[in-house]
Amino acid sequence: MDFRGAHILSVKQFERTDVDRVFQVADAMVPYAHRQRATRALEGAILGNMFFEPSTRTRVSFGCAFNLLGGQVRETTDVKTSSISKGESLYDTARVISGYSDVIVMRHPQTGSVAEFAKASRVPVINGGDGPNEHPSQALLDLYTIKKELQSNDGQIDGMHIAMIGDLKHGRTVHSLSQLLLLYNNITFTLITPAELRMPEAIVSELKQAGHTVIETEDMEAGLNDNDTIYLTRIQEERFTTKLEADIYRGRFRLNQSIYTRYCQPNTVIMHPLPRDSRAEANELDNDLNQHPSLAIFRQTDNGVLVRMALFALILGVAEKVDDSARDVGWYTGGRF
Amino acid sequence: MDFRGAHILSVKQFERTDVDRVFQVADAMVPYAHRQRATRALEGAILGNMFFEPSTRTRVSFGCAFNLLGGQVRETTDVKTSSISKGESLYDTARVISGYSDVIVMRHPQTGSVAEFAKASRVPVINGGDGPNEHPSQALLDLYTIKKELQSNDGQIDGMHIAMIGDLKHGRTVHSLSQLLLLYNNITFTLITPAELRMPEAIVSELKQAGHTVIETEDMEAGLNDNDTIYLTRIQEERFTTKLEADIYRGRFRLNQSIYTRYCQPNTVIMHPLPRDSRAEANELDNDLNQHPSLAIFRQTDNGVLVRMALFALILGVAEKVDDSARDVGWYTGGRF
Amino acid sequence: MDFRGAHILSVKQFERTDVDRVFQVADAMVPYAHRQRATRALEGAILGNMFFEPSTRTRVSFGCAFNLLGGQVRETTDVKTSSISKGESLYDTARVISGYSDVIVMRHPQTGSVAEFAKASRVPVINGGDGPNEHPSQALLDLYTIKKELQSNDGQIDGMHIAMIGDLKHGRTVHSLSQLLLLYNNITFTLITPAELRMPEAIVSELKQAGHTVIETEDMEAGLNDNDTIYLTRIQEERFTTKLEADIYRGRFRLNQSIYTRYCQPNTVIMHPLPRDSRAEANELDNDLNQHPSLAIFRQTDNGVLVRMALFALILGVAEKVDDSARDVGWYTGGRF
Repeated sequence: MDFRGAHILSVKQFERTDVDRVFQVADAMVPYAHRQRATRALEGAILGNMFFEPSTRTRVSFGCAFNLLGGQVRETTDVKTSSISKGESLYDTARVISGYSDVIVMRHPQTGSVAEFAKASRVPVINGGDGPNEHPSQALLDLYTIKKELQSNDGQIDGMHIAMIGDLKHGRTVHSLSQLLLLYNNITFTLITPAELRMPEAIVSELKQAGHTVIETEDMEAGLNDNDTIYLTRIQEERFTTKLEADIYRGRFRLNQSIYTRYCQPNTVIMHPLPRDSRAEANELDNDLNQHPSLAIFRQTDNGVLVRMALFALILGVAEKVDDSARDVGWYTGGRF
Repeated sequence: MDFRGAHILSVKQFERTDVDRVFQVADAMVPYAHRQRATRALEGAILGNMFFEPSTRTRVSFGCAFNLLGGQVRETTDVKTSSISKGESLYDTARVISGYSDVIVMRHPQTGSVAEFAKASRVPVINGGDGPNEHPSQALLDLYTIKKELQSNDGQIDGMHIAMIGDLKHGRTVHSLSQLLLLYNNITFTLITPAELRMPEAIVSELKQAGHTVIETEDMEAGLNDNDTIYLTRIQEERFTTKLEADIYRGRFRLNQSIYTRYCQPNTVIMHPLPRDSRAEANELDNDLNQHPSLAIFRQTDNGVLVRMALFALILGVAEKVDDSARDVGWYTGGRF
Repeated sequence: MDFRGAHILSVKQFERTDVDRVFQVADAMVPYAHRQRATRALEGAILGNMFFEPSTRTRVSFGCAFNLLGGQVRETTDVKTSSISKGESLYDTARVISGYSDVIVMRHPQTGSVAEFAKASRVPVINGGDGPNEHPSQALLDLYTIKKELQSNDGQIDGMHIAMIGDLKHGRTVHSLSQLLLLYNNITFTLITPAELRMPEAIVSELKQAGHTVIETEDMEAGLNDNDTIYLTRIQEERFTTKLEADIYRGRFRLNQSIYTRYCQPNTVIMHPLPRDSRAEANELDNDLNQHPSLAIFRQTDNGVLVRMALFALILGVAEKVDDSARDVGWYTGGRF
């Protein structure tokens, strides 16, 4: 695909070469994200960071990525008070808001709303999450993390074994990640869920048709064996009818140091889209693994900045120009990375 | 007037030459707003964008205008949690906040509050709307749009025919626009409203005394005939005692493709301050006109950025310096404008 | 202490030489804060301004300070919607958020929360107020103001007489300021409070042990006599069980022009951490003193920008580099300072 001027709405719009291109640019962003160098590539450009549903982490990650490329950020986090409550259509909102910015990131609680917004927008739109539907930059950062982690174990995505654990019915991240993995070859998926929270049948079928192996089980201990990567998820309480219904499943599958040591291969990469629920009744991923070298969850969020920088650079056509205005940073950065 | 260091509180403070000056600078801002060039004219300056009443559109428009001149924006959108709830006076708020910024845009629900704030402020203040009272940058962008639209039809403001339609009793925008039009000559106003929502008598008198012609009617079809511009408004539900009372008038006057074709002169410019209420029960300006070349509503909001850039440039005395630090933008802008 | 890369969590971490260093850098920031010069010292750096409790004034002050050094600001003001409500630990929040920024300012309603956050952060954290506990930049700006005000009266901190008035039990600012004054010599404190709202005994003891003189009284008129500085405080309504309980003390100690003239020495500096409660029933510091040359309350908030610029410059190791990229500002600044 030609990234210049393109909307990023769904993982389904990518070919494998597109994903490779994003990852290649993400790699090139490392010195900037790690504060070794700074650039003015997007000096004068404005990101419209429109969050019609709150998400501190995603919002700040996109905003920082744009700042790191030298651009400015204008934000909206106010949900109830927008003109939409006065009967304004998404068409109008898009026509207006796109007159202010060079690119827009939009998060919205309704499936399809971001795509509808993008149709009327005069500037590129990145889907920052449209309800239970899509969140393509999250899937890209997850896959980028898998690639990097496996590489450091001399592995690769093709042929890998991955276990996905938890609420695979409602988990948007595992759906999108699975979609992206359709572009790769010969992967073994072990899906560990309560029977009621299984991965949607449509996705399982697609994976199988693409030549992947899919194993579904409720037996966590057996399922943990023989993986390169395990991807844990939170019970998506907000997608259940009642908190009580969600409580049935909370804490059902947990990973901690002793389980990891007993059942997982050494070096199995541990991932989680965050936030993880650290309350005692949930504790899906125990803090006793916080210092474990295979715990990749904070490298995941760091990679999010790289991937989002890459998307901005590609969409705005500056991927090859970032280094032109590069300079060393002048402030003290300690040993943060 | 000398714009440097001046507060912009009311349309009443402008002479016609002042309006001409704003529009001349707004014209010069086009290459920057259209992302052909970027400037550092206000690099290092800070806008305090203080919204004590929410207004996404106005807030983001001012913020982008300041960013496009190279400046930084610090914002407040939080209403209930401000120090005012701890008994702080507007005087104190102004003394403190004005120590942080180079210029302040303030929106506040109470008539006169922004003027009171400005009196204590140590930096220039732009009224971004003080309740039902004033919103001068909106009036300027409306008038700027009329001027530009008529120009492209070889027309001009002096001598034009304009219809104003809807809730002219509560509509702050039509009041302020009328005030500005006092500076021009020989305009014919056709005011189309329900009897209960007529334009305040004081404004009608002023218009007549200034030599303008004012026709008031409840007959939309007759009133639509023979105009250069029609300016539609939303029923200002928030100014009625109850939603029910507002509902009586909602949808009373509607414009759509077939009405436009039947009753309006060709090329009649269609304006609306937005947001327009697109719900079926209101639908004051139908979506079937969205592609119509005379629909100027989105050019209006685009012009808002130009006019606000002009105000900042004039107040901060950089109108003649914007080009000094200009450079071509380096990113892909597609054909957005 | 070595400021580079350090967290600023408590006034207790400072030696007197550290305070001197902050004040020396704050002095050097004057031309930048007064818009005579602008700098790019932190161009490309990002402040994470994380306010999990609202505070417009502190938030905007820190944000402006960072902008004035050339940096960018990403903010969070949304309290209830953060991931913490989904069971995320402060450890996780810190690991994630610190991946986005070069330095973090955090405000949080719970004592100790910012220190806990800092422990997991990969970048320096400044405590912007953790509930009733600490707010070190406020104490520094208060002390900096005292120093500057006394200097202009040919006085100094060592040996000064200061009266603290009002709710000294709950007032975080007077606690922290007292802690800082432990570093100085031979100060006379006159603490004027209702018996129930006395300064905590632990602090009084520490002051005495450090060789200072402490006088406690309920007699305001006697207490006002013979001071270089008087520091008034607001009744901290939010720390009382009920508003009614707070009302008992509201308005008990008031300062106005006639009381000042009658009881205070000429040139006694008047301070208040703001916001002051200007409602009739409180009115702890009357508006009839607004034009008085000894009223330092707005110089206090202005000094806040200087002190916060100094903290950022020291922590990020650019204190000596600010002038390297300095240039004259190009916009009209009037006579604001």
